[in-house]
Amino acid sequence: MSEFDLIARYFAALGPERPDVVLGVGDDCALLEVPPGQRLAVSIDTLVSGVHFFADCNPEHIGHKALAVGLSDLAAMGAEPAWATLALTLPAPEEDWIRAFTLGLGRLANVHGMHVVGGDTTRGPLSVTVQVHGLVPKGAAIRRSGARPGDAVFVSGTLGDAGLALRRMLSGEPVAPELRHRLECPAPRVALGRQLRGIATAMIDLSDGLAGDLGHILTASGVGADLELERLPLTPQVAAVVAATNDWSLPLTAGDDYELCFCVPPAHIATIGPLAETLGLPLTRVGWIRAGAGLAARAADGGRRTLPARGYDHFPAAVDGAD
Amino acid sequence: MSEFDLIARYFAALGPERPDVVLGVGDDCALLEVPPGQRLAVSIDTLVSGVHFFADCNPEHIGHKALAVGLSDLAAMGAEPAWATLALTLPAPEEDWIRAFTLGLGRLANVHGMHVVGGDTTRGPLSVTVQVHGLVPKGAAIRRSGARPGDAVFVSGTLGDAGLALRRMLSGEPVAPELRHRLECPAPRVALGRQLRGIATAMIDLSDGLAGDLGHILTASGVGADLELERLPLTPQVAAVVAATNDWSLPLTAGDDYELCFCVPPAHIATIGPLAETLGLPLTRVGWIRAGAGLAARAADGGRRTLPARGYDHFPAAVDGAD
Repeated sequence: MSEFDLIARYFAALGPERPDVVLGVGDDCALLEVPPGQRLAVSIDTLVSGVHFFADCNPEHIGHKALAVGLSDLAAMGAEPAWATLALTLPAPEEDWIRAFTLGLGRLANVHGMHVVGGDTTRGPLSVTVQVHGLVPKGAAIRRSGARPGDAVFVSGTLGDAGLALRRMLSGEPVAPELRHRLECPAPRVALGRQLRGIATAMIDLSDGLAGDLGHILTASGVGADLELERLPLTPQVAAVVAATNDWSLPLTAGDDYELCFCVPPAHIATIGPLAETLGLPLTRVGWIRAGAGLAARAADGGRRTLPARGYDHFPAAVDGAD
Repeated sequence: MSEFDLIARYFAALGPERPDVVLGVGDDCALLEVPPGQRLAVSIDTLVSGVHFFADCNPEHIGHKALAVGLSDLAAMGAEPAWATLALTLPAPEEDWIRAFTLGLGRLANVHGMHVVGGDTTRGPLSVTVQVHGLVPKGAAIRRSGARPGDAVFVSGTLGDAGLALRRMLSGEPVAPELRHRLECPAPRVALGRQLRGIATAMIDLSDGLAGDLGHILTASGVGADLELERLPLTPQVAAVVAATNDWSLPLTAGDDYELCFCVPPAHIATIGPLAETLGLPLTRVGWIRAGAGLAARAADGGRRTLPARGYDHFPAAVDGAD
């Protein structure tokens, strides 16, 4: 089975048909139509075997996560998902693997109405690069740079679940299925991102941990923030680890949660509760933007400490070293 | 030096500034403006160390080629280069390597007025994925599917140089610098592609060899073609190998030439000579489209044989096996 057959059979029609795809998979380029008044939002991300996922990870989950990471970036701009391209590097064309991979990726593409319009398959060490393309009305994208003193800082969902799953898998401990699912099949918060147009002043997705990612908002906006640690939304498993160790690194610096962190000016804070109910997704105020710089955290005992404004870094620390 | 520092320092401003880049590197997504009446053309390609380039290849050339491959796809649609995104996976953040890589990529981006609007840097086995974005007026893109019986088949430049360079490097023979340059620093035929709007009925870039790539045009167009072998444009080095061995595989099935193959209806054939002069690039008629299917080649002795309609395939045959 040749490379071309592989591409033709599995990557030709992933995700629903869209009238704005003038020409899809099968030519030198795909041709796409961006409606007048819309801006194109793009983001590219690579997942590498042994760094971003375990080599024996279910390929269905690899396919899901490879697209989810990009969808989360679109969500963080308030963009509507439109198209994806896929560059897959794998050691050998194993049909079972490819079928499962495309199943996972295609299912998520269907959920978000996204069509895969192009791809490249190459032989080499397993890695997946996905570029996502979204649409957002002119002037409506939510950047990292708009936070202002007095804005409330919110996060969606719960923090630290993916980090706890990873920690347990690395140490060989048993992992509850729902925790592992949070690591391997994150749910990008696309609907939330879109709903926050005109409401949030700044937004970022939590790929590298709240401290580092909120730090990017602070740097881009030229402001500081105070976090209230006791308000961080934690599942019972993560809360138990934090309580037992008094170590907040899971919710603050573990990556891969793919929740959204966003800033809301006082006039709009009252809209967030109803939005959380509509979406069926917790949206929790965890702190406030202030003038100045840096991120400070206040613990329940009133103590205050400065947090390092950085998160997960692929080079110094990764899942299992180079391979 | 962290991943974020690397990205910020070297990938933040590759290529010229463009007014249609609403937001570049540094947020969750880049934001881009596609003018009304233009279609967006996109293509994604991965180059893997040990498969698409030698592990010790000059990183400047790797950067050049990673972008050139995508530019060649834009050229083959008749699209104007606009933006690129870059996903770089490398074993360690070696600053010298990154500086040279970005120099090679940035120089070619400048030549074609293309801005790098986003990137992702990950740790892992060396590979480079580039997505290119181009613009082409509605209805003007040149697809693979428009060839009609009676069209002339043209190729740009010369064929088989990259293949000969690769063959010699693999066997440890000396390689003339200009041959090696053709392999490592291909020149994408962007100006030619754009000039062929309204003239060529079908076009493809020669990444996998003339037989296979022209074969894609034939399949997409539902036609056949006759090649005249003695007309294939060859450099003296490639001509000498063909003459000595009577083996046409270098010009027909070796990949990586990144020339354009295009079909021209009789009414427009007379425009190709002047175009070649304007561009300073040989444009050679090498055959004719006919009704039917398949690709046949006629040798100088009048013999006729059917060619396998496939080219380079990453899985069965690659530079040096898996690593």
